[in-house]
Amino acid sequence: MNLRKGNLMDVRDDIKVLDATIRDGGLCNNFEFSDEFVKALYETNVKSGIDYMEFGYKASRNMFSESDFGKWKFCKEEDIRAIVGNNDTSLKISVMADVGRCDYKTDFLPKSESVIDMVRVACYIHQIPAAIEMIEHFHALGYETACNIMAVSQAGANQIDQSLQMLAKTNVDVIYLVDSYGSLYPENACELTCKYINAVENTNKKVGFHAHNNQNLAFANTIETLSYGVSYLDVTVQGMGRGAGNCASELLIGFLKNPKYNLYGILQFIEKYMPALREQGVVWGYDLQYFCTGLLNRHPREAIEFTNQDRKDYAEFYHSLMDNY
Amino acid sequence: MNLRKGNLMDVRDDIKVLDATIRDGGLCNNFEFSDEFVKALYETNVKSGIDYMEFGYKASRNMFSESDFGKWKFCKEEDIRAIVGNNDTSLKISVMADVGRCDYKTDFLPKSESVIDMVRVACYIHQIPAAIEMIEHFHALGYETACNIMAVSQAGANQIDQSLQMLAKTNVDVIYLVDSYGSLYPENACELTCKYINAVENTNKKVGFHAHNNQNLAFANTIETLSYGVSYLDVTVQGMGRGAGNCASELLIGFLKNPKYNLYGILQFIEKYMPALREQGVVWGYDLQYFCTGLLNRHPREAIEFTNQDRKDYAEFYHSLMDNY
Repeated sequence: MNLRKGNLMDVRDDIKVLDATIRDGGLCNNFEFSDEFVKALYETNVKSGIDYMEFGYKASRNMFSESDFGKWKFCKEEDIRAIVGNNDTSLKISVMADVGRCDYKTDFLPKSESVIDMVRVACYIHQIPAAIEMIEHFHALGYETACNIMAVSQAGANQIDQSLQMLAKTNVDVIYLVDSYGSLYPENACELTCKYINAVENTNKKVGFHAHNNQNLAFANTIETLSYGVSYLDVTVQGMGRGAGNCASELLIGFLKNPKYNLYGILQFIEKYMPALREQGVVWGYDLQYFCTGLLNRHPREAIEFTNQDRKDYAEFYHSLMDNY
Repeated sequence: MNLRKGNLMDVRDDIKVLDATIRDGGLCNNFEFSDEFVKALYETNVKSGIDYMEFGYKASRNMFSESDFGKWKFCKEEDIRAIVGNNDTSLKISVMADVGRCDYKTDFLPKSESVIDMVRVACYIHQIPAAIEMIEHFHALGYETACNIMAVSQAGANQIDQSLQMLAKTNVDVIYLVDSYGSLYPENACELTCKYINAVENTNKKVGFHAHNNQNLAFANTIETLSYGVSYLDVTVQGMGRGAGNCASELLIGFLKNPKYNLYGILQFIEKYMPALREQGVVWGYDLQYFCTGLLNRHPREAIEFTNQDRKDYAEFYHSLMDNY
């Protein structure tokens, strides 16, 4: 039986907060953030004690055309350096590499030549062997690595157990529980957490959690899984991320007791930079259509389509989802 | 040690959902709902399996002028009957009576002559003796009774223990944990829940929970406390309630497994009736100013004022709260 680690007043040194605004938020605006925005967010994160900032994806330029996306879909070394220089700060830099959508053998420098600290490999559960191959490649290059197993709410218990056993034997540093569909309740999320925590017992590996806010549970699930031993916590400013978005940076930073975290700067960033995104028509955050897909443990694509069409017939939408269960 | 009751697939017959939209939502629009709205909500609640509907306050007409408020501030018998007739349904009707703001000795009929089923007495913790006097009065008249102890996040542990011991000896049917400031995390809320549950052990009394959404935790705290044995769960449609609002009806009804609850009708109600309220300028729901007061365990009055002034300088607002801790 797993118990809560620490209590609500504790400082836990294993906690690491990862700001994924540019990466998950980039899914809302085609990664078209201004350099000013990214630079200001970087400086805010440094000042606020955030541990990692994810700049985007390292997507294959053979599969995706650079002219179709903002630059943070590709995270070229020179683009990151244009923001952070040599990053002489305590903030670490991560990028995400999707299994099957990344030229990982050619697109990554050795860590000694890169300003990137961590590569997070995102995969669905049937892609674990492919993810492991990438993880070992990145580890050999000198990077910290994470494996983000997506859509875990649709995976079978055996699949999860087997995947965790496989990952426990690799050089991966962090294994992430990812609630892609925002369908986990705190009780589910904590049960899964305990499974992940048990799998990495007696290793130096840590467990991470990435939330989606379809049922308004992103923050709750984050602090509940944290209390059962999750160390790496993904956030985005004002929850900016695909569909219903993620756990909001400000909520988690308000919660954490470690005095290195600082809420004030994040609030300043929000009031200065976030309204302009909304005014440009960038849309994210909790709404009833996302609740419906989260409740039914489905990919949010139909809800995103509903949003793009500016539909408001929620009952009919729910009905149609039930018809296509 | 208290453990979770049941699991996520269970139907628990002790669960009762109470829709407080007109009462807590009335704090957002001065109780000025149209009869059409209230009637449609009543019919929706009946159809959706909601157990109780709260129509508003029974406020003193000596202390508050009827011309200053909508009628649901006063909940006269004839006004409720104009909506529900004799209420020949399975839905029960509740009203709220505030300690010190209610002429309880003169304003309540015997239950045999009233369409009201339950009276909920709201008090701060220092008013428990006054609340008990009212509860015994309403019990003697034949009503079900609840005691809603507000702002419990600011009460001392001893005060809470003593209050629960006192209430356990009365005829009250339900004791409510009320997170008035939206400052409780699930872990706090569940610890408090266990205290309440232990206090009513070996009685027929039940425990209730009333959430506020300042930190986007209203739904999470509701389902977490429910899992530790809370039976009475307050909701409002789209979370409509003072400041950051409450636990949304649709989220909880989506969660509950008892087939008597029906989400579809609630979604229909929302799309038909709720946009008009927003268009009239009625404002509620999670926003950063409410997060700040919730985080600091404060009454939301400064955040409501900030909202009414249409301010967006969140960092300065947070700063000013810290200066006046």
